[in-house]
Amino acid sequence: MTAAPKSAYQHLQERFAKIIDISNASAILSKDKETVMPKNSDEDRTRQIMALADVAHSLIKDPQVEKWLDAAEKDKRNLPKTDQRNLVLMRRAWVSQAGLSDELATELARIGSEGQKLHTELRKTGDWSKMKDWYKHSLDTLRTVGEIRKEKLGAASVYEALFNSFSPDLAEATVAHEFAALEKALPGLIREAVDRQGKGPQPLPLKGPFPPEQQAELSRRLTEAMGFDFTRGKMFAIDAHPSTGGSASDVRFTTDTSDEESFLSAVYSTVHEAGHALYEQNTPLAHRYQPVGGSMGMAVHESQSGIMERNAAHEPEFFQFLEKQAREVFNRPDDPALSAENLQLLANRVNPSFIRIEADELTYPAHILLRTKLEKALIEGTLSVDDLPQAWNDGMKSLLGITPPDNAKGCMQDVHWPTGAVGYFPAYALGNMIAAQLYAAAVKAHPEIPKELATGNFTPLRLWLKDNIHSKGSMLTTDELMVAATGEKLNAKYYLDHLSRRYAGKPYAPSAAANTNAQPKARKPGN
Amino acid sequence: MTAAPKSAYQHLQERFAKIIDISNASAILSKDKETVMPKNSDEDRTRQIMALADVAHSLIKDPQVEKWLDAAEKDKRNLPKTDQRNLVLMRRAWVSQAGLSDELATELARIGSEGQKLHTELRKTGDWSKMKDWYKHSLDTLRTVGEIRKEKLGAASVYEALFNSFSPDLAEATVAHEFAALEKALPGLIREAVDRQGKGPQPLPLKGPFPPEQQAELSRRLTEAMGFDFTRGKMFAIDAHPSTGGSASDVRFTTDTSDEESFLSAVYSTVHEAGHALYEQNTPLAHRYQPVGGSMGMAVHESQSGIMERNAAHEPEFFQFLEKQAREVFNRPDDPALSAENLQLLANRVNPSFIRIEADELTYPAHILLRTKLEKALIEGTLSVDDLPQAWNDGMKSLLGITPPDNAKGCMQDVHWPTGAVGYFPAYALGNMIAAQLYAAAVKAHPEIPKELATGNFTPLRLWLKDNIHSKGSMLTTDELMVAATGEKLNAKYYLDHLSRRYAGKPYAPSAAANTNAQPKARKPGN
Repeated sequence: MTAAPKSAYQHLQERFAKIIDISNASAILSKDKETVMPKNSDEDRTRQIMALADVAHSLIKDPQVEKWLDAAEKDKRNLPKTDQRNLVLMRRAWVSQAGLSDELATELARIGSEGQKLHTELRKTGDWSKMKDWYKHSLDTLRTVGEIRKEKLGAASVYEALFNSFSPDLAEATVAHEFAALEKALPGLIREAVDRQGKGPQPLPLKGPFPPEQQAELSRRLTEAMGFDFTRGKMFAIDAHPSTGGSASDVRFTTDTSDEESFLSAVYSTVHEAGHALYEQNTPLAHRYQPVGGSMGMAVHESQSGIMERNAAHEPEFFQFLEKQAREVFNRPDDPALSAENLQLLANRVNPSFIRIEADELTYPAHILLRTKLEKALIEGTLSVDDLPQAWNDGMKSLLGITPPDNAKGCMQDVHWPTGAVGYFPAYALGNMIAAQLYAAAVKAHPEIPKELATGNFTPLRLWLKDNIHSKGSMLTTDELMVAATGEKLNAKYYLDHLSRRYAGKPYAPSAAANTNAQPKARKPGN
Repeated sequence: MTAAPKSAYQHLQERFAKIIDISNASAILSKDKETVMPKNSDEDRTRQIMALADVAHSLIKDPQVEKWLDAAEKDKRNLPKTDQRNLVLMRRAWVSQAGLSDELATELARIGSEGQKLHTELRKTGDWSKMKDWYKHSLDTLRTVGEIRKEKLGAASVYEALFNSFSPDLAEATVAHEFAALEKALPGLIREAVDRQGKGPQPLPLKGPFPPEQQAELSRRLTEAMGFDFTRGKMFAIDAHPSTGGSASDVRFTTDTSDEESFLSAVYSTVHEAGHALYEQNTPLAHRYQPVGGSMGMAVHESQSGIMERNAAHEPEFFQFLEKQAREVFNRPDDPALSAENLQLLANRVNPSFIRIEADELTYPAHILLRTKLEKALIEGTLSVDDLPQAWNDGMKSLLGITPPDNAKGCMQDVHWPTGAVGYFPAYALGNMIAAQLYAAAVKAHPEIPKELATGNFTPLRLWLKDNIHSKGSMLTTDELMVAATGEKLNAKYYLDHLSRRYAGKPYAPSAAANTNAQPKARKPGN
């Protein structure tokens, strides 16, 4: 018996499965580099990862792929809905990889690696005169990339095309509208929180040392409580920037347990990364070697880390669980600083500061609003790189009331722009916004969620997330996903309400002028 | 300025560098699977490794490669000597991969993986009726492979072609001649050793428990003393069959520290694997992304593990170092079983037994002689698979004086034949033979080598091996390598002398009929 000839769609499935296998291999090698690899093996490893990227690029750029895409799209009505969605994602992946000339793809890769080196070298001194030409080059290149993707994917703007390469299926207009609501409310909320905090009870500082191996044990317990499957993933407690990687069936995350003066940083990096990891572990098994089986870009991914870190693990009840575990692990039955109340006070301090990655929950989104506004203006040409430091400092003053003393603490602190990751930043604040909206829906459906956290029972929350987010993979757009999970499109209302209740002690009451619930209307010519 | 067009040889260099990068990536992923990977991530990992093998196969099978090979070979007189050798190795690699039909290559891969599963399932029960058809299929397939390789690479016989795919550049006639000398001498030596051992002092047994983590520390100390570079490699002390893998700049080996009753097994698996690892670490850096920069096949590799395990780490002086370290690590200052003399007695026991991988140094080569003779006869068709169990048992009786009670302890114990690794076995005994010859030359050049081992100083031996073996990569044939290092071609004399001195307490005195030094003469027709 001869097998029937493969359809174009079947060819595509096989090709993308192979690309996913290779990219999973590369993801494991990257994670190994951070966690296990000996320190002088870097040259070999870099070559390996580049060779795999090159292979994956060739496999997608193969002219056959375009032919299969064209043929499968013609015939798509006969495909099941999931396969139709898969085909959309395949075309998008093809455009992203093959839509650029070889020269442009090579230049993008070079900006990624050279930019990383330059950033590492110059961010400490903040030597803007040495850095600014590189920013210009990176932004010019990304503008060209964005123009191509806008045209080939039908994005509303060049910036939207870049933003969507990280956070797909989300309109720039939606982001702009919801961020405007945030921008309006945040400065007042921050002032109110700082004022309230000054008048309230002051926390006792933690007194170290908290040995890294005990922090690792605490991290392990938290991860276990959250429902991470250790038979299909691994936690590494090391002294490095926390991150999550690997493949869906072998999720590896790192947490940083090196700060012996406080274990709270390890606690929250663990909960954050385990949130990312749970998402990966619970993507749909049946589609895991297809684009539709993967997680939705970065905004949704940051919501899954954020909901665990900012929502669940800052609930008053959670601190009862944390107190019990910390007292056991560090063997400090009587340390008053380890009481649930004190840990909660410590974890909720608000303090406007210059560095985004050190910011507290309330001031964090201000850092993102600033970067989003600036990178959009830089891409659209309404702000020049020469004027960036001043624009940055003005924005900090207006949003947080502080002015960075130098560019190292200002527009040179992040790795994103020098490495070409323009359009990434909104994902962080969108993640927090999505998290607040999802958490409200989850608690509405399962009112026991907060009180179960008192004993470390994350199960009701985890299962709700699994059903409503994780198991959907990339089958829905972000809007469809949010409507299905919460009954509403993405909006800032729940996030502002969450921040207002937690930091101002009251529900959020928008003024009449800022109805954050209304979606933007299509503009008419002349408006 | 336009770059000069690449020569065919330059194209080959780039292509093979890429293939080596991908195979290094795969080697790291395989090692990670044994050491770090969570237990339920196997399906993903198997897919990744298969995808990389497939990619590497396509890269070498690409019709361009044959064209480049043809063109570069035409022009080879203009290449430096190292490049000429590289070209020979590239052609050989191409024949091995691309010389087989796709069907045959796929069948070989299937025999590897299916055979592994069948072996794991059936070796315990030794159910020959279920296994023998698979042996037939594997051997038939390998015969076909050997016929193709013989023709395309000009090997002297089908068996030589298969043997050379593991241990290249060595004539089957040389092996046959030296193995004949071994076969003649071994049974008498073994009888003499057992007899002598019975009359001599008896060792005190070790009394456990020796905790795995302390055995790991002992292993780490040994590895460090041997000069392993931990910045470019890693040791994993785990409960699994010891092995070495990874890439030359990231060598990873495992050692088994799980036997709590005795630490000697961990000691010797560590020293053995670290011997392999040192070879890899010291292959020539300048050529590491070319075939010529890699190690010489398995016979030489087994010599580098063997010289450390069997020669250096069984010297009387070594046991002084081992005693000191073991007493410290296990905190047993007064345990009489840990004296250097007692450890030496324990490490040198001779006891004919059924299982190859558990055999002592003296009886081990008998297991290899048997397998080499049988697999050659099976490939040449002078022995049928149906007659294998009887032939095996007869051989065991004649070489070691014992008869296996069943096939599980007989012809079904090894993974090699069911997985298609026909021609591999000689490498083990050749490795020991080469090791003895090299060790004699090293000690002749540096008479201090044994006594330096008393303080764990492996440096004189390691540097001699680095200069004479490791740094040569694959630039010489095995014969050239041996002549350059020792002044003589590979021969059994030093090995027999080593065994005779160690186990019979006297130099080896071959009878007039067995002059092991004479190389085989070319046969004349009618002889």
